[in-house]
Amino acid sequence: MPEANTRRRARGGGGAARRAERTAVRIETAKFIERNIPNFEILNEEALEIIETNAETVLAEVGVNFVDNPAALQRWKDMGADVEGERVRIPRGLARQLIKTAPSQFTQHARNPEKSVVVGGRNMVLAPVYGPPFVRDAHGGRRYATMEDFNKFVKLAYMSKWLHHSGGTVCEPTDVPVNKRHLDMLMAHMTLSDKPFMGSVTDPSRAQDSVEMCEILFGKEFVQENTVMTSLTNINSPMTFDDVMMGALEVYAKNNQACIISPFIVGGAMAPVSVAGTLTQVLAEVMAGVAYSQIIRPGAPAIFGAFVSSIDMNSGAPTFGTPEASLVTYGAGQLARRLGLPYRSAGSFCGSKLPDAQAAYETANSLNMGLMAGVNFMLHSCGWLEGGLVADFEKFVMDADQLGVLHGLAKGVAYDENAQAMDAIREVGPGGHYLGCAHTQANFKEAFWKSEVLDYKPYETWEDEGARDTRQIATGRVEHLLANYQQPQLDPDINAALNDYVAEKKASMPDAFA
Amino acid sequence: MPEANTRRRARGGGGAARRAERTAVRIETAKFIERNIPNFEILNEEALEIIETNAETVLAEVGVNFVDNPAALQRWKDMGADVEGERVRIPRGLARQLIKTAPSQFTQHARNPEKSVVVGGRNMVLAPVYGPPFVRDAHGGRRYATMEDFNKFVKLAYMSKWLHHSGGTVCEPTDVPVNKRHLDMLMAHMTLSDKPFMGSVTDPSRAQDSVEMCEILFGKEFVQENTVMTSLTNINSPMTFDDVMMGALEVYAKNNQACIISPFIVGGAMAPVSVAGTLTQVLAEVMAGVAYSQIIRPGAPAIFGAFVSSIDMNSGAPTFGTPEASLVTYGAGQLARRLGLPYRSAGSFCGSKLPDAQAAYETANSLNMGLMAGVNFMLHSCGWLEGGLVADFEKFVMDADQLGVLHGLAKGVAYDENAQAMDAIREVGPGGHYLGCAHTQANFKEAFWKSEVLDYKPYETWEDEGARDTRQIATGRVEHLLANYQQPQLDPDINAALNDYVAEKKASMPDAFA
Repeated sequence: MPEANTRRRARGGGGAARRAERTAVRIETAKFIERNIPNFEILNEEALEIIETNAETVLAEVGVNFVDNPAALQRWKDMGADVEGERVRIPRGLARQLIKTAPSQFTQHARNPEKSVVVGGRNMVLAPVYGPPFVRDAHGGRRYATMEDFNKFVKLAYMSKWLHHSGGTVCEPTDVPVNKRHLDMLMAHMTLSDKPFMGSVTDPSRAQDSVEMCEILFGKEFVQENTVMTSLTNINSPMTFDDVMMGALEVYAKNNQACIISPFIVGGAMAPVSVAGTLTQVLAEVMAGVAYSQIIRPGAPAIFGAFVSSIDMNSGAPTFGTPEASLVTYGAGQLARRLGLPYRSAGSFCGSKLPDAQAAYETANSLNMGLMAGVNFMLHSCGWLEGGLVADFEKFVMDADQLGVLHGLAKGVAYDENAQAMDAIREVGPGGHYLGCAHTQANFKEAFWKSEVLDYKPYETWEDEGARDTRQIATGRVEHLLANYQQPQLDPDINAALNDYVAEKKASMPDAFA
Repeated sequence: MPEANTRRRARGGGGAARRAERTAVRIETAKFIERNIPNFEILNEEALEIIETNAETVLAEVGVNFVDNPAALQRWKDMGADVEGERVRIPRGLARQLIKTAPSQFTQHARNPEKSVVVGGRNMVLAPVYGPPFVRDAHGGRRYATMEDFNKFVKLAYMSKWLHHSGGTVCEPTDVPVNKRHLDMLMAHMTLSDKPFMGSVTDPSRAQDSVEMCEILFGKEFVQENTVMTSLTNINSPMTFDDVMMGALEVYAKNNQACIISPFIVGGAMAPVSVAGTLTQVLAEVMAGVAYSQIIRPGAPAIFGAFVSSIDMNSGAPTFGTPEASLVTYGAGQLARRLGLPYRSAGSFCGSKLPDAQAAYETANSLNMGLMAGVNFMLHSCGWLEGGLVADFEKFVMDADQLGVLHGLAKGVAYDENAQAMDAIREVGPGGHYLGCAHTQANFKEAFWKSEVLDYKPYETWEDEGARDTRQIATGRVEHLLANYQQPQLDPDINAALNDYVAEKKASMPDAFA
C-alpha cells in the first residue's frame, strides 16, 4: 500500500507528526498467518456433494426470508428468484452463479500500511472478541462495559504481537448512547491503534457513518477503490435476513467494503442437531447472503461466516469447544473453499464464567480447530468469556499469547539442510547433549515459540513469588501493557477532522439508549 | 476373549462371585477410539524420505550405545551390526528389515474381556498419567505420593468412561520400598480395576514379577499366547539404551508382552532444536529399539513411542503444548505409520504448577494434537501436572472429561439420511426453531458430547452456588467418584494367589529405598 502511505504523509507532514514519530514506541505485530500446513479435510467428496445438493434444495424449495426489506425482495425478483411474501426461493444454481463475482481473497488496508491484511487463500487474520455487554477482571469483577474498558481493549490489541486486527465492538460501551457509541468506537480504533478494524452494523445509518469516517481517515477515493473495513452481518438462523443487518450489508457492499455473512447457530436450536444438517443449513444461508451482496455490487468482498456452538440439552445453554462444533467448523471450511470464498469461524470460545481451566480447554479446542479448519478470518480470537457475554481482560492477554502457538504451528516443518541438523547429531552423538552444540547456538533464538504469560519457573521460585495461577499472572501483564501503552502517531489534521465529524454527528441527534 | 472369560468363570464360579456380581455397580467404559477421521499429515513425501534416509545414516554412521549389556552387543554382532565398544552401528536397511516382524496392531487383553483393547490401526487407547513422584489436590496441596494416592487414581481411572486403560505407575508410591512397590502397584491394577494395565520396567526382575503375577491372573498359557501388558521402555536420548530398560524389554519381548519404545526428548537438549532434526533422531532411536525387540523375539508387540517436549531456552525447563512439540508429534505419527508400527505419543502435558488455565491450554493443545496425529496409545492422557512431577487429582477428572471430546471428534461426520436432517429443515423453516421438532426429539440424546465437569449453568445459579472455578468443581467430582467406588469382582482364588505371591516376594528380600 505505498499509495496510502504516501497520501497520508503528503497530507500531514508537519513538525508535530515528525515529533510523534520520533517518540513512538515500536510495537511488534506479526504478519498475518500464511499457512504452510495442510487444511484438515473431514468430509469426503460424497458427503460434500450431498450437502451441496441439499443446500440448493433448501434454497429452491424452502427458501429464505428477507424481512422488512421490500427493495431486497424486488432485487431477488429481478434476478429470477421466486418471491412470495417475504420468502425468497432461489432456483438451483442461481446463488452459486451470483457468488462467482465475489473475490476469493482481498486486502483490508490498515492506516499503517505494514499492518494491512490479506483475507483469504491460505492466510489467517486474527481479531479480538466482538460484542460482549460485560467486562471482567480480577480486581473489578463482572460489570457492564464502558468506553474506558473499550479503549483499554483497543490498546491491548494494538500491543499484542499476534493480533493482526483491532476488531470491532470489543465490548459494548454501555455508558455511551446506543445511537452514538459507534462513533466513539470507530474513533478509538482509528486513533488508539493503527491496525485494521471493523465497521458498525447496528443500523444502516451507522454503517454509512463508518464509511464516512474512513473517508476522512483514508481519503474518499481510496475508500471507493479499496477495502478498509470488514463488518459482521449475522444471519438470524434459520434462514432469516433482517432489515438492519441487510441494510448495513447494503451500505458496505455498495462501498466495496467487506462483509462477513455469518449464520449464528446454537446447534439443536437454530439448526438441526446433526452436523451434516447444520452444514447444509449454514451453506444455504451463506450462499443466499453472499449472493445478495453480489447483487448489490458484483465484486464486493464477502466472507463465508459460520458461528457455531452446540447446546446443553438440559439447560439450553450454548456450549463451546465441543466435538460437534469442531466437526461443523471443519466441514464449513471445506464448503467455503469449494465456493471460493474466504472463511470466518472459530475463536476463543468458552462457556466458563471465569478465565479458568474450563475456559482454557474450551478455548484451546476452538483455536486449534480454527487453524486446522482453514479459517481465514478469526473473529473472537482472544478475550471471549461466558458464552460471549463477557470480555475478560486477563483472558484477553492469555488467549492472545496462545495465538502465538497457532503462528508456530502454521509454519509447518522446514527440511532444508540446516533444519535436518545432521551436523548436530554427528557432533553430539550417543549420550551427549545438544544445549551447547554449534547448531543449537546458531538456531535457538528462532527455534521455539516463547510465551509471554505462562509460567516455566522452577517450583520453588514460583512458590516464593506467590504461587500465582495463570489469571493472577495475566493481571500483571494487563497492567504492565496498559502502563506502557503509547499511542501510534496520526496526522493531526486527520485527527481533528475525525473529532469534528464525531462532534457534529453527536450534536445532530438526541441520545437514545435503546 | 471368550476363552479368558470362560477360564475365569470356571475357576471361580462359587456363590461369592455370584453375590459380588449382583451387587456390583455397572461402570461404563467407552470402547477404545476407532477413528472415522483422517490423520493430519504435515510432512510431504520429500520430507519423509529425507528424514528416513537421514535416520538410516545416523544408525549406520553415528550408531547407538547399548550400555552395560554385553549380551545385547553380541546379539547385534550376530545380526551383522558393527559393534565397537558399546557403540552399535546398524547397516542401512537392517533395522527396517528386523522391524518387519513386529505386528502393526495387537490386542492387549484385560481381565474383563469387554475391556480388552486393540492397539494400532486407526484406534486410540487412552491411559492415565505415568510416573509422578508427587501428587496434588486442592485440600492437601503438593506432597509425595503414597500407595493410598495410587489406589485412588486406579479407582478414578476405573470409573472414568473415557479411559480404556488403567496405566502403570499412575504415581510413585514413595511410602513403599523401591524394590517392592511394583508388587503393590500391580496388585492395585489387578484388583481395584478390570481394565488393561502396564508392567514394571525399573528392573528386569520386576518385569519378571509382572509376568508371573499376570500368569496368576490370566493363566500361564494365556500369557504366553497373548499380550496382557504394555510397558514403557524409555530410550535415554540421544541414542542410548541403558541396561535396566533394555533388561525389562528383554523380559517382556521374550514373553510376548508389548513394549513402548520411546525416545524421551526435551527438544534442544536431548535432540536438535529443529523439528526435522528431532524427527530424524526419534526415528533412528525407535528403529534401533524396535529392531532389538524383534531380535529378542520376532513378532513381539512393539510400539513406536515419542515423548517430546520443547524447552524454555531461558530456564532450561521443558515446555508443553507448544507448536514445536506438536509438529514433531504429527511428523512422528507419519513415520510410525510408514514403519507399520502402532504409535504412542501426546498426553495431558503441561508445565503449570496448578490445574489452572495454563494447564488446560497446554493440555488441550496436546490432546487435540494426539488425536489428529494418529496416536494409537496415549499414555498420560489425564492427570499430568508440572512437567510430570505431579499427578493432580482434580486435573485427573478434568482431563478425563476432555477425553470425551476426542471420542466425539473421532466419530467424524455421518451423512446418512437421518444425519442430513432435510425433514427437520423443511419442518422448521425460516424463523422457526429446532428444539421441539421431530428430528431433534429423535436424536438429541446422542447428538452432543456432554461434560461431567464443566459448568454450563446460568450466571446467577453459578454465583449462588459459590462461583466455583473448574478446579473447585473437580474437587467435588473426585470426592463423589471415590465415595461411590465399588470394586469389580475377582475370583477369590486368584485374589488369594496374588496376595500369596506378593507376600512371599516381599518376605524374600529386605526393604530398599534407592
